[in-house]
Amino acid sequence: MLTESLTDAQIAHTAALLRHHSPLVHCMTNDVVQTFTANVLLALGASPAMVIDEDEAAQFSAIASALLINVGTLTHERARAMRAAISSANAAGVPWVLDPVAVGALTLRTEFAHEVLALHPAAVRANASEIMALAGESLGGRGVDSTDSAAAALPAAKTLARRFATIVAVTGEVDYVTDGERVCSVAGGHAMMTRVVGTGCALSAVVAASCALPGDRLSAVAAACGLMARAGEHAVAESRGPGSFIPAFLDALWLHNREGQV
Amino acid sequence: MLTESLTDAQIAHTAALLRHHSPLVHCMTNDVVQTFTANVLLALGASPAMVIDEDEAAQFSAIASALLINVGTLTHERARAMRAAISSANAAGVPWVLDPVAVGALTLRTEFAHEVLALHPAAVRANASEIMALAGESLGGRGVDSTDSAAAALPAAKTLARRFATIVAVTGEVDYVTDGERVCSVAGGHAMMTRVVGTGCALSAVVAASCALPGDRLSAVAAACGLMARAGEHAVAESRGPGSFIPAFLDALWLHNREGQV
Amino acid sequence: MLTESLTDAQIAHTAALLRHHSPLVHCMTNDVVQTFTANVLLALGASPAMVIDEDEAAQFSAIASALLINVGTLTHERARAMRAAISSANAAGVPWVLDPVAVGALTLRTEFAHEVLALHPAAVRANASEIMALAGESLGGRGVDSTDSAAAALPAAKTLARRFATIVAVTGEVDYVTDGERVCSVAGGHAMMTRVVGTGCALSAVVAASCALPGDRLSAVAAACGLMARAGEHAVAESRGPGSFIPAFLDALWLHNREGQV
Repeated sequence: MLTESLTDAQIAHTAALLRHHSPLVHCMTNDVVQTFTANVLLALGASPAMVIDEDEAAQFSAIASALLINVGTLTHERARAMRAAISSANAAGVPWVLDPVAVGALTLRTEFAHEVLALHPAAVRANASEIMALAGESLGGRGVDSTDSAAAALPAAKTLARRFATIVAVTGEVDYVTDGERVCSVAGGHAMMTRVVGTGCALSAVVAASCALPGDRLSAVAAACGLMARAGEHAVAESRGPGSFIPAFLDALWLHNREGQV
Repeated sequence: MLTESLTDAQIAHTAALLRHHSPLVHCMTNDVVQTFTANVLLALGASPAMVIDEDEAAQFSAIASALLINVGTLTHERARAMRAAISSANAAGVPWVLDPVAVGALTLRTEFAHEVLALHPAAVRANASEIMALAGESLGGRGVDSTDSAAAALPAAKTLARRFATIVAVTGEVDYVTDGERVCSVAGGHAMMTRVVGTGCALSAVVAASCALPGDRLSAVAAACGLMARAGEHAVAESRGPGSFIPAFLDALWLHNREGQV
Repeated sequence: MLTESLTDAQIAHTAALLRHHSPLVHCMTNDVVQTFTANVLLALGASPAMVIDEDEAAQFSAIASALLINVGTLTHERARAMRAAISSANAAGVPWVLDPVAVGALTLRTEFAHEVLALHPAAVRANASEIMALAGESLGGRGVDSTDSAAAALPAAKTLARRFATIVAVTGEVDYVTDGERVCSVAGGHAMMTRVVGTGCALSAVVAASCALPGDRLSAVAAACGLMARAGEHAVAESRGPGSFIPAFLDALWLHNREGQV
């Protein structure tokens, strides 16, 4: 199996489509990253909305362009609302994406992630430890920091992608996006992206937005990873530390979006 | 009916009063905008506090200067706590403000907003779609982005203001503030304010703060809109994109506040 | 009793230990400060994780390096999860820290804070009003702003520290850290730190991280206060208002951390 490398043209194409279609992303995500996730989507021209009541979540996911399920601060009540939203999204043909934050070590989220994996996510975005835990090959990392490299998790990612007929994006120093047959690698990014909270979670929201676009989904998901990696590189060059990195990162996404017109 | 235009003197007067009285605003708001809302109030010299337990919310709203009710991430539990806080605020003579985020399309929040509209809010701050949905004239927008212009919603805003004896601020490219008889228009602002999350929600918190000030309430609410619009214009001139806009916006509020002394 | 003054060497030593050990801090904190708290810990080289479900919180606090309990947006459900996390942390020998936000005026949090004070916190970090309320000497402040100076609360802090065999950090213009016998004072900081939300809450998370370090705990807690105060001073010098203060503050923590190697 050959590994494709993401091209600049694919990134520009996806950026232009995000801006043109402005997908409305229903984000059911954790408490820590809500603001940053919303601002990342807005900077790219997409529209975020956070709706969490069980009945409202079901109403909203049916009219959204895509749904994000992130289990970072899962509770039983939120799990119920997420199930309702997934069911409604599936009925309406709305693609949904799973971010299985810190699965492996913690029971509620691990069981929930396994349960919803069977409900046809369009994509799963996670780090190496989380992917390996989902595939049953590791006990997972210590919290959200991955202790395995993305390359080491690629076989597990392919297995998951085939078993659940989904696209798996396993992110790390190099990101790999696979549907179980094709593999697209995404180089770039910067270690500073791990020193501010929410870059991975926000990427999952952008992956959800990209799943709402027309065209080749694997390429769009890889381009979502590439958009974030490039913005991270630009932002590091413009900043003095993690504090100034955050606004510089949003500005870089915005400038990329403005320039990336079709 | 003549439309008044907000003056610089009214903005400066309200900024000075906010700084002088430092109203304590009990914010019961959505998950996405809590930090930004708190920082906007602090930049203007007001004091934010978020208290959410049903019993504590009732205790706190009675001693606060004003109460904000924002339904962006409403749940049944939060609705109960909000009802308790509104009841307690009304009993204590504390003004409260409603931000009916995304009413129209979603059932729980729409029913809740209609219910509490009858409980004597001092003001309602919303976009055109939300105002029209509250007045029964439209099915509302797609999420929080308004699909109607504020001017088109002005008749609905007047109807609501008269029906519920409140002040309605309908915001958009131009904002209109009305008590059903008088109308004050507020020009200014910048489209960038719609590309970062929370500017509308934070404005509603400033409207709540302004309702705690002595003097003409309609003028104070319009000045709250004007303060935010001016800060947005200044911030755009100092920033490269939505990332750098956010700190520049808080700085602009702060500098306005520092200079706007009585 | 002599009062020690915190030295630069103590700050540098603790900064280096934080970077070297990278303590994993389980933060059960309020809705408003989650992102900022996470970013402060990351800037100092520590690792934040927010886990809130009752069962998962108990699982996670046993494997974390330290646990933070902040009652700013307490609910009955969160109180249950916090009790489970404290119990599990105590069983595993994981130090935990209490931030009793706004105790005194509000019943649920005041009763909860008194209850868990008896469960052997490693440290308590609070402002003067909160410390005096915990010690039964005052009715507390109006929200989170302290209306008493830290020096006035020092006797109450010593009483609490002795009664509960803990370390009490009472913060204000000058911070005092005491175990009931020794007192370490920490000068510095800047009033701007009170005009952005979350500096006190984030300090409590850094105090939790410092309790996970080897060596003299009172000195480490004082150094945590000193790290934040110094970063505040540097950030004020680099910023124009509270908006630009926030990224400058995180950058200052980061630069301090980078330079503060052993």
